[in-house]
Amino acid sequence: MAKIAIMGFGTVGAGVAEVVRLNGAKMAEELGEELSIKYILDVRDFSDSPYAKKMIKDFSIIENDDEVEVVVESIGGKGVALDFTRRALQAGKHVVTSNKELVATHGKELLAIAKARNVNYLFEASVGGGIPVLRSMFQELATNQIEEIVGILNGTTNYILTRMEKAGISCAEAVKEAQEKGYAEKDPTADVEGIDACRKICILSDLAFGKEVAPELVSTEGISNIQRQDVGIAAAAGYQVKLLGHALRLPDGKQAAYVALHLVPENCPLAPVSDVFNAIIIRGNAVGDVMFYGRGAGDLPTASAVLSDVMDAIRHRERRRNLGWSQSADLVAADDLVMRWYLRGDFSLDAAKAVCGEVEELTEGAVITAPMTGAAAKEAAKALGAAAMLRVL
Amino acid sequence: MAKIAIMGFGTVGAGVAEVVRLNGAKMAEELGEELSIKYILDVRDFSDSPYAKKMIKDFSIIENDDEVEVVVESIGGKGVALDFTRRALQAGKHVVTSNKELVATHGKELLAIAKARNVNYLFEASVGGGIPVLRSMFQELATNQIEEIVGILNGTTNYILTRMEKAGISCAEAVKEAQEKGYAEKDPTADVEGIDACRKICILSDLAFGKEVAPELVSTEGISNIQRQDVGIAAAAGYQVKLLGHALRLPDGKQAAYVALHLVPENCPLAPVSDVFNAIIIRGNAVGDVMFYGRGAGDLPTASAVLSDVMDAIRHRERRRNLGWSQSADLVAADDLVMRWYLRGDFSLDAAKAVCGEVEELTEGAVITAPMTGAAAKEAAKALGAAAMLRVL
Repeated sequence: MAKIAIMGFGTVGAGVAEVVRLNGAKMAEELGEELSIKYILDVRDFSDSPYAKKMIKDFSIIENDDEVEVVVESIGGKGVALDFTRRALQAGKHVVTSNKELVATHGKELLAIAKARNVNYLFEASVGGGIPVLRSMFQELATNQIEEIVGILNGTTNYILTRMEKAGISCAEAVKEAQEKGYAEKDPTADVEGIDACRKICILSDLAFGKEVAPELVSTEGISNIQRQDVGIAAAAGYQVKLLGHALRLPDGKQAAYVALHLVPENCPLAPVSDVFNAIIIRGNAVGDVMFYGRGAGDLPTASAVLSDVMDAIRHRERRRNLGWSQSADLVAADDLVMRWYLRGDFSLDAAKAVCGEVEELTEGAVITAPMTGAAAKEAAKALGAAAMLRVL
Repeated sequence: MAKIAIMGFGTVGAGVAEVVRLNGAKMAEELGEELSIKYILDVRDFSDSPYAKKMIKDFSIIENDDEVEVVVESIGGKGVALDFTRRALQAGKHVVTSNKELVATHGKELLAIAKARNVNYLFEASVGGGIPVLRSMFQELATNQIEEIVGILNGTTNYILTRMEKAGISCAEAVKEAQEKGYAEKDPTADVEGIDACRKICILSDLAFGKEVAPELVSTEGISNIQRQDVGIAAAAGYQVKLLGHALRLPDGKQAAYVALHLVPENCPLAPVSDVFNAIIIRGNAVGDVMFYGRGAGDLPTASAVLSDVMDAIRHRERRRNLGWSQSADLVAADDLVMRWYLRGDFSLDAAKAVCGEVEELTEGAVITAPMTGAAAKEAAKALGAAAMLRVL
């Protein structure tokens, strides 16, 4: 019998309890032992809940109960979540989380504590919701040198961009629609400004390359400045506008990571990924491109990933997963990367060619440049008086 | 130091040696010990190979060498591959394979031997080449009841169908092109007739549902009868014609599995999967739909998956993966499943409505029916004198 505690009984925490109820028998069969929720920690009142008897408000009960082997942290943020995670790991308990903010900002420290205490700190659900991308990367693709990661990491903004394209509405209108549907929060800043995607690309990069990338060092652009006409011009020319997180290792060992809008060509498997779906491409030196696709959020998908970590922690009780990242990555600025750029404005094709050299014309006043750095593209945009400038994948 | 032997030095076997050379240092770091190839078994002459000193022709050397912990079977077929696999497992060695024919036909027996000897028999590379789909399913998605699996499991036929659509050529012409490019074998029967896809859907179904599905019981349709006009009509109406393997569990506990051509609607993530790529959707009761995408073949991608199994076997030396399937699945005929059908022929819309009830007209003489069984669709096709009949996903 493996006993767990859930900290935070919101969407994810309640989802974990529900998936244990639904699929606990199958999990027990796989594990060879039963999985049982001993405590649920939440400061709110759940006396009417079927889980009322398990509810507690004092973390030290979990901390001091040797029977509790795995703690699920679904509190969120980096206040008490950080304090409780530190203490649970120090107490020799495995901790599993969906808290991307905490992993992106304090992962290095928490993984070091886990290593010192020989326990697991696992966070599959922090990226891509129910999509098994992190474990595939550190386990299945451990036979590869990872070269590049690029993905649609935030379902809310992908829904908004999809609606702008399909319904021809503005970003503000699509945000409102997403809020009405429950896909965007009342304050949608973390999604719309790319903050959520930034945390996720940091975690992916940390794991893939073994060096810490701090979120505050990652150039992060959201979707709030996107114009519906650019989405339309792109679509007519066979491109989808997507907010991508992108991390890569350069030949000299330096790294880059950023979040920005891109025109994605139709033949890229990220292009058709629409609505709230997430998709992540991982490029390995042996396997080539592998893509993982699914719902990036939601109570049951996220709980499914949390519980796969719980099972993994129990299976690897004695021999912890060798996860961690140490020194800070040597980052180059996103603007130093060479790529193609979309420019749109009140300029002629001849003017664009005079400034940029070879260009591909999408429609009058909208071109895609030859590969150049972001710095060069900004100069070109300025010289042309361009009204819009976007990266091209 | 973990020592392995490779049996069969063809595309996959040589790929395994190459990936060990390329990425061995990273794998050693992950494993905490070095990985070393002790023997390579092949009856052919490789005296000029850099691996000449490791080459042997006598299996009993591997069988009797206690230092060899993991054996990679990349011989193929079910002749000596079956004999050597049985003997290696009996000798207490972990066996890893890319041999889908052997796993689909003898997996139950070989997994039982592995269980009895407390060793692993792993076969990630048998489905989807380098895509980590099997381990994700039995490990990551162990928190789910798997309900359905549907996928593009054969890259050769997907290339052929892509070329028929993009270049407007016939199936025979596209097969020839695939052969010239090295994507199809001289005798392309196993790919073109769906035999390869059938083996893979059997393995997926065996693992997902825990009951054996024998390939000979699976209704298997290839692509040789597909007409270019149907590919064109489908594309114009927003559907891609794909050869899909499909396995599902019905509410009454019975199962179905088959391989057939389908019209796939644009909004399904399988639709844009083109050329030699594979993609597999797994539907779990908690996670919803998750899709895995990548190259389904090739030396390095396949070797990457083989070696992830080798690493897994070494990590789980003492505690074997609890894999296996026992009794035979209770299968319903593919023709009993209710789905929509594409019918094309020299009939009017009114005639189609008179025979099928509600239909969606794609173009003159081509309709999609309301959901009905295959048996009912065949009767309808006969009554209308239809020249083509395809499933709709």
